[in-house]
Amino acid sequence: MSDDAAGEQRIRSSFAKQGHMTALAATIGPISRGSVEIALRPSAATSQQHGFVHGGIVSAIADTAAGYAALSVMPPGTGVLTVEFKINFVAPATGDRIIARGRVVKAGRTLVLTQTDVFAETAGKEKLIALLTGTMMVVLDREGVSD
Amino acid sequence: MSDDAAGEQRIRSSFAKQGHMTALAATIGPISRGSVEIALRPSAATSQQHGFVHGGIVSAIADTAAGYAALSVMPPGTGVLTVEFKINFVAPATGDRIIARGRVVKAGRTLVLTQTDVFAETAGKEKLIALLTGTMMVVLDREGVSD
Amino acid sequence: MSDDAAGEQRIRSSFAKQGHMTALAATIGPISRGSVEIALRPSAATSQQHGFVHGGIVSAIADTAAGYAALSVMPPGTGVLTVEFKINFVAPATGDRIIARGRVVKAGRTLVLTQTDVFAETAGKEKLIALLTGTMMVVLDREGVSD
Amino acid sequence: MSDDAAGEQRIRSSFAKQGHMTALAATIGPISRGSVEIALRPSAATSQQHGFVHGGIVSAIADTAAGYAALSVMPPGTGVLTVEFKINFVAPATGDRIIARGRVVKAGRTLVLTQTDVFAETAGKEKLIALLTGTMMVVLDREGVSD
Repeated sequence: MSDDAAGEQRIRSSFAKQGHMTALAATIGPISRGSVEIALRPSAATSQQHGFVHGGIVSAIADTAAGYAALSVMPPGTGVLTVEFKINFVAPATGDRIIARGRVVKAGRTLVLTQTDVFAETAGKEKLIALLTGTMMVVLDREGVSD
Repeated sequence: MSDDAAGEQRIRSSFAKQGHMTALAATIGPISRGSVEIALRPSAATSQQHGFVHGGIVSAIADTAAGYAALSVMPPGTGVLTVEFKINFVAPATGDRIIARGRVVKAGRTLVLTQTDVFAETAGKEKLIALLTGTMMVVLDREGVSD
Repeated sequence: MSDDAAGEQRIRSSFAKQGHMTALAATIGPISRGSVEIALRPSAATSQQHGFVHGGIVSAIADTAAGYAALSVMPPGTGVLTVEFKINFVAPATGDRIIARGRVVKAGRTLVLTQTDVFAETAGKEKLIALLTGTMMVVLDREGVSD
Repeated sequence: MSDDAAGEQRIRSSFAKQGHMTALAATIGPISRGSVEIALRPSAATSQQHGFVHGGIVSAIADTAAGYAALSVMPPGTGVLTVEFKINFVAPATGDRIIARGRVVKAGRTLVLTQTDVFAETAGKEKLIALLTGTMMVVLDREGVSD
């Protein structure tokens, strides 16, 4: 198995352990070095009071995409933790699917800067709805934190 | 019914419409003018890959507490939308309960600056786990947006 | 004079009024609709304690580039105010020139989301040193705020 | 000399090396463990296009106060770097003095979360004008980075 294939498997296996992603029926899409995509379909369980997808859920998939994009460039044996993120919402989260595309902006030894663009897809057409920038930390030898 | 009682009822009724909060079994606690508390109990459905509560869920209740704190100072007939928030995570979200306390820092005519402190409660003792600052927008006459 | 030329002149004239930009000897470069560049040369007056350009100055030119990028898409007669920005620093601000390239991500009626990439140029080669995302507000009829 | 006195002297001596703070005629006020105050008087050299103090300068003193608050709790021999900050502006920066009060929210081994409240003082009365939250990094053995 190539390094890339091992890296991808590590992310898919970590994603499968996320009870929250399972509860949201979120799916993980294409993974490449420094870039990960996560998507979900709006449902009653994802709504806020106006019927749009809750900003916390948009944040959850955007943060998850960013975190795994960061993990994809970290050495084997490390884990990833989110230090912080900011998210700007520019349009209501409504449509057939919400798609979060995370990527690495700059990878340091300890910290990785990431950015996620979130789109709402309606009838096959995508529209930007949110923009997240986040700092991810490379974690080594911390109990309970791997991948 | 006093203005404050009407304001509180408006928030409780809006909260009840949030499918995501219901799915998380989150509860809304004390409400006063400019200040709202939301809490939940960790479960399998709230976890990320390390077993902690997912950062997206911590963000969801922190953003919701901030949004309703803002709504509590807005005129009747308006709605609230999150423009942006930043959240810093300072300790793992684990314990008996996760509690988000949102408050208004500065209320303007169009924008309201809010802050939420998030705590993990374990055996009755609270520990700060995250800090959110967010900009909320007063929305008037926008289709689909009330409360 | 074309609309674009008028827009560009409005920004150059507003920039000339900024005492702080003059004090920093910052210069405004290419301007197009939705995109503005500002640069400066490091000097003793721009340093923090380690000799790098101060994060506040990197922020100042990044915020200014973002603000004018936003202004470039706003109607005549309005002014621009920064609501908030986040900036992540990914490498020391040192080199021959510091260059901030601001652009509009999404323009709304009241708020404009912007992003600025900041580079350090050394011997003609550019390196990303900071990333800003900011919310700009369209201001109409507020005393003292034009352009 | 007590540890606290040594810590305070370390910060005052580092502040004196900041060419940018000198250029702004900014002054450093009370310092205690986890808390630092920096102030300046508005002048032509600190203005943006509307005559208010430039957001970049408000950010510069807010970031500096936060950074030194963090440094005040770091071990001797380390240096401080800003990883990121977000700043929200809630009122124009105008008055007799602009005062930034930084404090530590949570100190970790590698990262320190800080918050700075910025006030405008007019005729002896203070008004909140901005709120910064920032992540500071403890730096050890990096060339050129001490204090």
